[in-house]
Amino acid sequence: MSDKRSLSRLIKRVAGGKSNAVPDQLALEEPLEIQVAHGPEQSRVWKTVAITMRTPGHDRELAVGFLIGEGLLRSLDQVEAVYSRGPRYGESGWQHSARVTLRPGVPVEFGRLERNFYTTSSCGVCGKTSMEALAMSAFPPLPPATWQIDEATIYGLPARLREAQAVFEQTGGLHAAGLFTPDGRPLIVREDVGRHNAVDKVIGAHFLGGKGPASDDLLVVSGRASFELMQKAIASGIPMLVAVGAPSSLAVEVAEKFGATLVGFTKAHGFNIYTGPERIRVGSDRGSAMTAGTRA
Amino acid sequence: MSDKRSLSRLIKRVAGGKSNAVPDQLALEEPLEIQVAHGPEQSRVWKTVAITMRTPGHDRELAVGFLIGEGLLRSLDQVEAVYSRGPRYGESGWQHSARVTLRPGVPVEFGRLERNFYTTSSCGVCGKTSMEALAMSAFPPLPPATWQIDEATIYGLPARLREAQAVFEQTGGLHAAGLFTPDGRPLIVREDVGRHNAVDKVIGAHFLGGKGPASDDLLVVSGRASFELMQKAIASGIPMLVAVGAPSSLAVEVAEKFGATLVGFTKAHGFNIYTGPERIRVGSDRGSAMTAGTRA
Repeated sequence: MSDKRSLSRLIKRVAGGKSNAVPDQLALEEPLEIQVAHGPEQSRVWKTVAITMRTPGHDRELAVGFLIGEGLLRSLDQVEAVYSRGPRYGESGWQHSARVTLRPGVPVEFGRLERNFYTTSSCGVCGKTSMEALAMSAFPPLPPATWQIDEATIYGLPARLREAQAVFEQTGGLHAAGLFTPDGRPLIVREDVGRHNAVDKVIGAHFLGGKGPASDDLLVVSGRASFELMQKAIASGIPMLVAVGAPSSLAVEVAEKFGATLVGFTKAHGFNIYTGPERIRVGSDRGSAMTAGTRA
Repeated sequence: MSDKRSLSRLIKRVAGGKSNAVPDQLALEEPLEIQVAHGPEQSRVWKTVAITMRTPGHDRELAVGFLIGEGLLRSLDQVEAVYSRGPRYGESGWQHSARVTLRPGVPVEFGRLERNFYTTSSCGVCGKTSMEALAMSAFPPLPPATWQIDEATIYGLPARLREAQAVFEQTGGLHAAGLFTPDGRPLIVREDVGRHNAVDKVIGAHFLGGKGPASDDLLVVSGRASFELMQKAIASGIPMLVAVGAPSSLAVEVAEKFGATLVGFTKAHGFNIYTGPERIRVGSDRGSAMTAGTRA
């Protein structure tokens, strides 16, 4: 929980039928609570206006920039002090906060933030009950692995996802998500300006089809794997997330905690396994793949 | 406001000292209100649980998937009906909603969504007062152009942003944002797992430096340009956003409304101008650049 922005971790790099344990750098993703103090000093009230999943560092700037961008602050003249508080133990473990104290008399339209919340095209799990939501206490851990997917099948997933996208080639601006069988067959593919929306649409289509948890399938996403996408997979019982891009530190942490498999940097000839290698069959080592390789 | 996922628009494609009007496809980004009905039929209460900026289509799936992913729903057994409502005129113009009616007796922990909101690593303007926030009524339009940037300077911006990133090469997982002068000098560069956080940090650093609106500078982002990023630029007085990736339809709409310049698909030898070409000097046509070219 320092100001460093990446985390070193041993992962499995898979290519050409082999799996090697190599050190990798994960972009840190951790919660920051942004608080605003208002009212006279004797009866000052601290209000949490946002909890954002951010990469640590420059927390004071983040708080001020957030308030400016939301129209809650106009200039630094309205601010008495800004400070960031080191980690303290909160609902979701160690957490940071950044506090902005307003000058006396500065009005803040908390109503802008409070009455409702709205999720942007790149926003997923907005509107949670502060830190406690991060603990994902509502979701049970996934059952142990019941199926495996071949290394070669994973290589083909990004191309299969792209093939199933109708708009991507035209706009270059849409994220895709797809539910696939372990033998690489696309079941449902959706796209959206928001990657979390694409995932929501896939999950919704699955459940609207009258089915229960999608525990027999895996989720493939065209971009990065953040905490929110990993959460959505777990919430719908999907035990494996394959991302074309990089995962965040918190996505890896959550995947590990719930027993999910997380794959990132998926290319035509290689990928990284961050957690849950037991669901992946590397090379021809079929029988012992669940214990093969080195520990991540 | 149909189910189509992209919007055709004439833009200016700039390359080799020339600007050509060409048709382009923009990924549609529009608000969807997700509502849940609970309580007995006679006294049914509709509650807006989220307003998400999404690409139209599969709205029912999106609503169900969102509720599953948030842990508010477990299975379709809890649902009586799901329907999407065609566009009706609301606070922010024409808007869609998707409504989920729960079966009698199904408990919903609205508290999970209500008490606070939290923004994920990919989320920006979460926590707004529903649709009205979209109107961005708090922000004045930008003043007319007071400066210009050279075509060639824009070509170099993505590389300059990358050069200024310290972690990117290690993790591959961080977004970057930078405040640049019109002659291409980086003033502040920040990075984060969340692109909106990177922008917040840049804006916060600018204002913490004791300065007013950043009207003399431009914002460069490593990814796509969504509504939220355009809003953040406008809120801090930045009249120009240069994105390495694609803009959404709503980013373009908001940029146009507020008189901002929006550039996308920025590469070493070309870029697209979506709005505000008067701030860009194409080729050697310095004097008349503000009226040159064809209308986007």
